[in-house]
Amino acid sequence: MKIGALYLGSNKCHFNVWAPHANDIRVKTYFPEEKIIPLAKAGNGYWSGQFYNISPGTRYKYIINNRAEYPDPASNFQPLDVHGPSEIVDHQSFAWTDKGWKAIPLEDYIIYELHIGAFTQGGTFASAINKIPHLKELGITAVEIMPVAQFPGNRNWGYDGVYPFAPHHSYGGPAGLKQLVNELHKNDIAAVLDVVYNHLGPEGNYINQFAPYFTSRYHTTWGDAVNFDDNLNAGVRNYFIQNALYWLREYNFDALRLDAIDKIYDSSPKHFLKELAENVKAFSDEAGVKKILIAESDLNDEIIIRPIDEGGYGLDAQWSDDFHHSLHAIVTGEKEGYYIDFNSVADLAKSIGNNFVYDGAYSVFRNKIHGNSAILRDKKQFVVCIQNHDQVGNRAEGERISSLISFELYKTVSAIVLLSPFVPLIFMGQELYESSPFYYFISHFDSELVQAVRSGRKEEFLSFNWTENIPDPFSEEIFMKSKIRWKLLADEKNAAVFSMYKRLIDIRKKNDQFGIVKNDNLEVAHSEEQKFIRVRFHGTGKEVFYIANLGSGTIELREGVPPGRWKNIFDSSSSQWLGPVVSENTNRLIGGEKIVLYRESFLLFESEI
Amino acid sequence: MKIGALYLGSNKCHFNVWAPHANDIRVKTYFPEEKIIPLAKAGNGYWSGQFYNISPGTRYKYIINNRAEYPDPASNFQPLDVHGPSEIVDHQSFAWTDKGWKAIPLEDYIIYELHIGAFTQGGTFASAINKIPHLKELGITAVEIMPVAQFPGNRNWGYDGVYPFAPHHSYGGPAGLKQLVNELHKNDIAAVLDVVYNHLGPEGNYINQFAPYFTSRYHTTWGDAVNFDDNLNAGVRNYFIQNALYWLREYNFDALRLDAIDKIYDSSPKHFLKELAENVKAFSDEAGVKKILIAESDLNDEIIIRPIDEGGYGLDAQWSDDFHHSLHAIVTGEKEGYYIDFNSVADLAKSIGNNFVYDGAYSVFRNKIHGNSAILRDKKQFVVCIQNHDQVGNRAEGERISSLISFELYKTVSAIVLLSPFVPLIFMGQELYESSPFYYFISHFDSELVQAVRSGRKEEFLSFNWTENIPDPFSEEIFMKSKIRWKLLADEKNAAVFSMYKRLIDIRKKNDQFGIVKNDNLEVAHSEEQKFIRVRFHGTGKEVFYIANLGSGTIELREGVPPGRWKNIFDSSSSQWLGPVVSENTNRLIGGEKIVLYRESFLLFESEI
Repeated sequence: MKIGALYLGSNKCHFNVWAPHANDIRVKTYFPEEKIIPLAKAGNGYWSGQFYNISPGTRYKYIINNRAEYPDPASNFQPLDVHGPSEIVDHQSFAWTDKGWKAIPLEDYIIYELHIGAFTQGGTFASAINKIPHLKELGITAVEIMPVAQFPGNRNWGYDGVYPFAPHHSYGGPAGLKQLVNELHKNDIAAVLDVVYNHLGPEGNYINQFAPYFTSRYHTTWGDAVNFDDNLNAGVRNYFIQNALYWLREYNFDALRLDAIDKIYDSSPKHFLKELAENVKAFSDEAGVKKILIAESDLNDEIIIRPIDEGGYGLDAQWSDDFHHSLHAIVTGEKEGYYIDFNSVADLAKSIGNNFVYDGAYSVFRNKIHGNSAILRDKKQFVVCIQNHDQVGNRAEGERISSLISFELYKTVSAIVLLSPFVPLIFMGQELYESSPFYYFISHFDSELVQAVRSGRKEEFLSFNWTENIPDPFSEEIFMKSKIRWKLLADEKNAAVFSMYKRLIDIRKKNDQFGIVKNDNLEVAHSEEQKFIRVRFHGTGKEVFYIANLGSGTIELREGVPPGRWKNIFDSSSSQWLGPVVSENTNRLIGGEKIVLYRESFLLFESEI
Repeated sequence: MKIGALYLGSNKCHFNVWAPHANDIRVKTYFPEEKIIPLAKAGNGYWSGQFYNISPGTRYKYIINNRAEYPDPASNFQPLDVHGPSEIVDHQSFAWTDKGWKAIPLEDYIIYELHIGAFTQGGTFASAINKIPHLKELGITAVEIMPVAQFPGNRNWGYDGVYPFAPHHSYGGPAGLKQLVNELHKNDIAAVLDVVYNHLGPEGNYINQFAPYFTSRYHTTWGDAVNFDDNLNAGVRNYFIQNALYWLREYNFDALRLDAIDKIYDSSPKHFLKELAENVKAFSDEAGVKKILIAESDLNDEIIIRPIDEGGYGLDAQWSDDFHHSLHAIVTGEKEGYYIDFNSVADLAKSIGNNFVYDGAYSVFRNKIHGNSAILRDKKQFVVCIQNHDQVGNRAEGERISSLISFELYKTVSAIVLLSPFVPLIFMGQELYESSPFYYFISHFDSELVQAVRSGRKEEFLSFNWTENIPDPFSEEIFMKSKIRWKLLADEKNAAVFSMYKRLIDIRKKNDQFGIVKNDNLEVAHSEEQKFIRVRFHGTGKEVFYIANLGSGTIELREGVPPGRWKNIFDSSSSQWLGPVVSENTNRLIGGEKIVLYRESFLLFESEI
């Protein structure tokens, strides 16, 4: 059941709010005029009413039991931030011009993750639109937008959102977000939204005044967990399911990325994620277009992405932490935190071959057995990266991978990601060889909360023996420093990386081998001693294989090259990408000939048949 | 990995205890002599050592970090109660004489649930053995023993146990329990033990001194949940899995009944229950005998009993609350607590036909959608009853069903249970028409705890508007009043019920229809208005159907009788069972003839072909 202020046209509006314990619920409008309108009980704890003479733009709150006033839990817009009134939005008024838009299949996704505030100097949906030509030139096929739900103040990663239905006013609100999606579609780019169903932020979190949205049954780092399985859970489940459908329906999003589903606790016979997937599937069937759900999951549990008819929850894909961690650990040599669990080329090979490294193996970091086997799942069900907002911003200094490894290695890991059998994801600026940090930033109004965030972050890094000053998350300077420096493109090295990214994406798009990959047409070999990995794709069409040298020595390989005639079509060490090899390596390879792999280089070969 | 003091014969003993945070672990023996023996780290947080000159009967504790002494978490015997030392048991010394014993298949189980303390005046395993001739005469095929793990004092239901491996000293300890199982087997009766893996009792609960057995991630009515999925969970999982295997191996139990598995919280990719089932299966395969796991579950989640190769957890069966509640609600008219969700003959019919009544339907009592469909599961995967220790003892006054309904109705509900397509369970004394209460009783040493239990119980019943005095659970009188009155057999009415139970069990055993029932050879019809239910079994062999009149009026039925020639083989209203019908109803029925169903009566017909 739809919730919120549902504008029906002709100055008619239907209100529907879930408040099962309330004795009285009224709508109080503030603007353009003050009115108080009582709602009536509508069954199952909902209160509703349909009224005339209410125009879009009307601002309102709900009055509970004639005592306290709060914004709408399903507010579509919070023009005056988290403590202000909600605003009625007419979703019919936006003129979509992406009519010819056809959904891109998941296997063709090449995802670009961005944060609206930090992507551009302007920090708005509109200024992001100005960068679409750059994305189009780059060749990515999907943009994933970090959470936009209204959070307090103008600076926040988005995970402190408290109005899951309201695009942030400082980004440009509902109209701005629709325009961005519309323009992406017109440029053949899919739009993915990051949504948070495992908690709400601490400031402006009024929804518990309406109903038991949280339960003490489970305890998370954010406090009581969202109530997906305790008494009166139906309204809670409906709230988040409606949220998902709302973004797909009113904003034309193609996919949702579900934040940390491991913190969605649910012992019900039907897991919330399964119910969500069923609803999104029903919506897709009705709309005639496949909408996609991608989970961030720390569980390594294959059930999340197993199809419903095989007993799974039926999500389409999930992020692969194991891929990131094993690649990151090899190239940086880091062993802190969860990287202690990843320390070999074998781990990287296993993550590419078997999807999970921890598939029932004992994790030292976790002090427990972790994961189950996902070997039966398709490659396109995993999203991989060498950095994302978390892996960068959750470091004390927010360092990007570009500042942790050499230029040559940077190009090689980029190729491993972009030519992986999985769905690649790059983090904004990665294509520019951006090296300035992406910090953690907040702008709560509540100064006690700000202090709590500051100390929380200090404590977090103290446990890693971090002794230096932690950048202040509340500082506006820190936020400004996190923005992409677009002028980098004028520099030779940055331009070379951008050019190489375009080439790799072009190669990926032109060879179907990188798309629908099944386990039995993928072959992964590696050498721990020589620190190389070889991945061979042999489905139908032109076969390819790559060898990546992750070590600091030159490798001469004779054995280990698959039989047949091969042509080198990409060399990360080529002078074209400012590498040490003067001319592009165009050696034709006949089985038995040797390959020379310069330190930290990546070579891609295509079959000559 | 086995844990505890493992006696190896020839005065040799191997100790193994899990204490991952300890710096030092020693064994301190008290009896027959005082010794201190240091253990060594054995990997994965275990400490172990193998020593000579240690005889069975030796009493010991562990000393942690040279500071505090505690009994063994896996103590096999606590002769001096929960705070005293553990005692080494030689499991090889017991002479089993049940060698010819073959496991009874689950579909042939007719379960008799008993509480060792209340089953006999003696209240011991030995005195229970004296009652085996009675059980044999009755005809039940399995005895389910309420938990025997060491709890504080001599009076307790067993759910406050704190040494899951130690049969209570006041019941007769390890030797007594083995003797009971041995004698049951010699009388062709399977032995089922009720085990508690969702919490430990509050007094004498020292295991958390050794390792993180509990986690604050989940909150239960007993406090922090058992740590099945948080850091260092492997030792916790092993502890309970070893416990299950220990009862099956050392005590020859045939089956385990797992208490309230809905309070076993586990978000791991492999649920603890699945790992347990896998281990029990491996043990069964090795032993060449099928051991059985039966869950008490408040989840109505079919995954618990779905086979592992179909994606389930692989337990064999579960208790069916829905059957009990729907039958109880119809015959008592009660609407308090969870009975509010059951108020029609249709519910009973659905519980018999579809296994779950709440299979995704909205529960008013729970304020949420409850359950999923279990229609694909076999009938033998559900254990049904009209009363058990909980349904009796968790009433403020501990009333048995016999004191809540008429004599005629008592016989009818008995027949519905005993001739159900499921596995029937009767609660001790039920076959004697026992009407004295089965109270809730405890005997903690800690007086503050006793007071807490008293007030907790008062509060619980206050919520049901219970205003009278709640029987004092600490009172010894209350415990004595809960014992079965065996002299009842001398009374005519009680003897008639006992005789009828024997007949019904005999009928069940003689007709395979009641055994392996598939959904497609079961047909359930009912009338809400006339309050009758008809259940027809038509597999191979002699078909049967019964009609039960749960209302207070006579019913004349012409339509609604299946076609064919039928012979009445049981009539609960017959004078033989002190009913109003003078001669036993031996009407042969030809399709079209009418059946007269006296008020509250049950008629069973068998096909004449």
